[in-house]
Amino acid sequence: MLDYNAPLMTDMYEYTMLDATLQDGTANRDCVFEVFTRHLPQNRRYGVLAGTGRLLEALKDFHFAEDDLRFLADRHIVNKSTIDYLERFEFTGTIRGYREGEVYFPDSPVLQVEGKFGECTLLETLILSILNYDSAVAAAASRMTSAAKGRPCMDMGGRRTNEWAAVAAARASIVGGFRGTANLLAAKLYDLLAIGTAAHAFTLVHDSERAAFESQIAALGRNTTLLVDTYDIEQAVKLAVEVAGPELGGVRIDSGDLASLAQRVRNQLDALGATNTKITVTNDLDEYAIASLQTAPVDSYGVGTQLVTGSGSPTCSMVYKLVERTGDDGRMQPVAKKSKDKATVPGRKLAYRSYEYSLAECEHVVSGPVAELDCFEPGDGWRNLLVDFVDHGQIDDAYTGHDAIMDAQKHHAEALAELPITAQSLMKGDPVIPTQMVTLPW
Amino acid sequence: MLDYNAPLMTDMYEYTMLDATLQDGTANRDCVFEVFTRHLPQNRRYGVLAGTGRLLEALKDFHFAEDDLRFLADRHIVNKSTIDYLERFEFTGTIRGYREGEVYFPDSPVLQVEGKFGECTLLETLILSILNYDSAVAAAASRMTSAAKGRPCMDMGGRRTNEWAAVAAARASIVGGFRGTANLLAAKLYDLLAIGTAAHAFTLVHDSERAAFESQIAALGRNTTLLVDTYDIEQAVKLAVEVAGPELGGVRIDSGDLASLAQRVRNQLDALGATNTKITVTNDLDEYAIASLQTAPVDSYGVGTQLVTGSGSPTCSMVYKLVERTGDDGRMQPVAKKSKDKATVPGRKLAYRSYEYSLAECEHVVSGPVAELDCFEPGDGWRNLLVDFVDHGQIDDAYTGHDAIMDAQKHHAEALAELPITAQSLMKGDPVIPTQMVTLPW
Repeated sequence: MLDYNAPLMTDMYEYTMLDATLQDGTANRDCVFEVFTRHLPQNRRYGVLAGTGRLLEALKDFHFAEDDLRFLADRHIVNKSTIDYLERFEFTGTIRGYREGEVYFPDSPVLQVEGKFGECTLLETLILSILNYDSAVAAAASRMTSAAKGRPCMDMGGRRTNEWAAVAAARASIVGGFRGTANLLAAKLYDLLAIGTAAHAFTLVHDSERAAFESQIAALGRNTTLLVDTYDIEQAVKLAVEVAGPELGGVRIDSGDLASLAQRVRNQLDALGATNTKITVTNDLDEYAIASLQTAPVDSYGVGTQLVTGSGSPTCSMVYKLVERTGDDGRMQPVAKKSKDKATVPGRKLAYRSYEYSLAECEHVVSGPVAELDCFEPGDGWRNLLVDFVDHGQIDDAYTGHDAIMDAQKHHAEALAELPITAQSLMKGDPVIPTQMVTLPW
Repeated sequence: MLDYNAPLMTDMYEYTMLDATLQDGTANRDCVFEVFTRHLPQNRRYGVLAGTGRLLEALKDFHFAEDDLRFLADRHIVNKSTIDYLERFEFTGTIRGYREGEVYFPDSPVLQVEGKFGECTLLETLILSILNYDSAVAAAASRMTSAAKGRPCMDMGGRRTNEWAAVAAARASIVGGFRGTANLLAAKLYDLLAIGTAAHAFTLVHDSERAAFESQIAALGRNTTLLVDTYDIEQAVKLAVEVAGPELGGVRIDSGDLASLAQRVRNQLDALGATNTKITVTNDLDEYAIASLQTAPVDSYGVGTQLVTGSGSPTCSMVYKLVERTGDDGRMQPVAKKSKDKATVPGRKLAYRSYEYSLAECEHVVSGPVAELDCFEPGDGWRNLLVDFVDHGQIDDAYTGHDAIMDAQKHHAEALAELPITAQSLMKGDPVIPTQMVTLPW
């Protein structure tokens, strides 16, 4: 495993706030923080939560190395007694939230973190970094997967985002429905299908396109995918079948008018007897381009830039807000800020989705005192959206690792299928179901 | 230092291409690869190269751990003799390029990698990941810094991008002119100024705003920055000066109409005698918002989302293309692909910037055979844009670490100052100087 350094992937103010609250005692107040977004990006119809598994894995790494503590001390970011606190730091709180792969809407409480103020504060930046980026990629992947209508989409975006973000993006793309990734570190860490073809440089380093194709077939077998647009596509396809025979696995087209090229290449391949040879297209694809290729004889899509940058929305505006905490009397009290356009709804939330004719029709977000929430009766057939990830510091391993990613992919497909079909329209518009906020009397 | 795993931050096809070319012998051909972009994003006027220092640091880590090799073997990505090659892998090539912080334009050869095909191929993904993301952030930071007209801009964007990307973004923001970052890991790794204020949760966890302010002052001293928009800004400012005295370091406003609020708060602070108390504003700032605040009495800007997502352009479309390689006769030959809209210019390049009245007027990109390039005479006063970073595997440490970042910041400011002032306009338009491609006879 990698040396992750989760504790310092954090804004300085989390530490200075910890420092001040340890001194005045409020660091030990019981708190509930919630993660939510006020709006979906770009008039999208739904969001896709991703990153939960990564977050839980990062939480396991949330321990301070000696040189981290030295850094915090040397820079006078916190004082000596806070260093002592950090040395012994262990998150002992409880985390629940929407399942990875779940769809969400404005004000959905996608994550709820319950614990002492001090420990919950330290997690803010890391939680938001992970969920904001991974969910942005998963949402793009979900839209592309829908647009591809069953044809496999593959992540080839690593080179267009930060080298670590690329690893997270590969994982999040699988949550959103992608089948494989070109990124080897992601394939290794999360046991994902690794895929790839060849670059133009491979053709160019050889004395001829024929030499390049022969070399690739010799090394990777006939089932490989040959890149056919370095010089002239028609000649390259002819050559490819000549070299590999009709058992050639696939060809990739990376430039030009992909729809009409795919059609020409399909006909050419069929005429050459290579009827099972697949056509992969790449070249700045996004969900709109993929949708426009629906009638073209394309077998799979390789997606880069637009996947790893969230197709126009590289982040999700998720925030982490204190909604409840104990007062001097030890009793939980709802709290909320009143900032203009950024006011929050006090109190911890329950979250349910209700259905009509097996289709989701409303997101119900219910807040109120624990005693009231405990006896809240959801409507008939409402689905409880909150699951437990961490119980008093104990991380549930069912939500980490490879299997959790595949579970999330399956769960996402099911959650999406439950939404009104408008969700899969690429048209801009309101969230496909409304969020109803219900406040029980305090 | 962190366990980086540079070799696997790579698309699978780099390895399968290596495998095939090791078998047919072309892996040992001498090659020149170049990094460039065909266009600047969103009709920007200039680009800012960043990430070079990180790339050189990653190159030092480009060695294979045993379990990486096992992964490559177990997945049958490469065969046994390629594993042997990787076990001994060491980059022995030469890398030159634009200095970190340099401005660039379409077709500027921002990086040139010279070596054997095999070793150059393995670096492609990592080089592009680093340069594409870091340059996107640096360009956004540069535009924001220009718009801020000398007022300091601070990176507070970590929570809105992948947790590792956040570290790279903090560093790139400094290259683009930012003064500090909230990100502690970036501050630690690169010895940067760490900055921060407090969150709304800090106010809310206390029984009153007064208790929160008193706690922060007690822990951090009067020179701290208090967040004043949790409830009512006017009351909070009054309270802040009451608690801290007129020596209060600063206040932060994070919501509402920042210009008019800053004006009111400035007047209120002055009336209370807190004439040296600074005003920091945050809240979805970008270069346009910062420009619109020029006449408001703001002292510094905290920038989040729009910084770390490249202000609408989260990546730079840089590509890595083979331009020259040896043939069977051992002589270097120019190569180029002919793909529609993606054709490349063959041959290694020289790059110069020419000036008129001390202002840049043209980017000259000169290609041709080495013998011709060697005796190419640049025009009077042309600046050679290519510097040497790696000489036959030897990395020049002058371009890594903290000092290199500060050098890059300084160099960027100088390079930007040399451009026609239109560069600093936020209006969309053509690159501020043209790129002239010159081909010497082969």
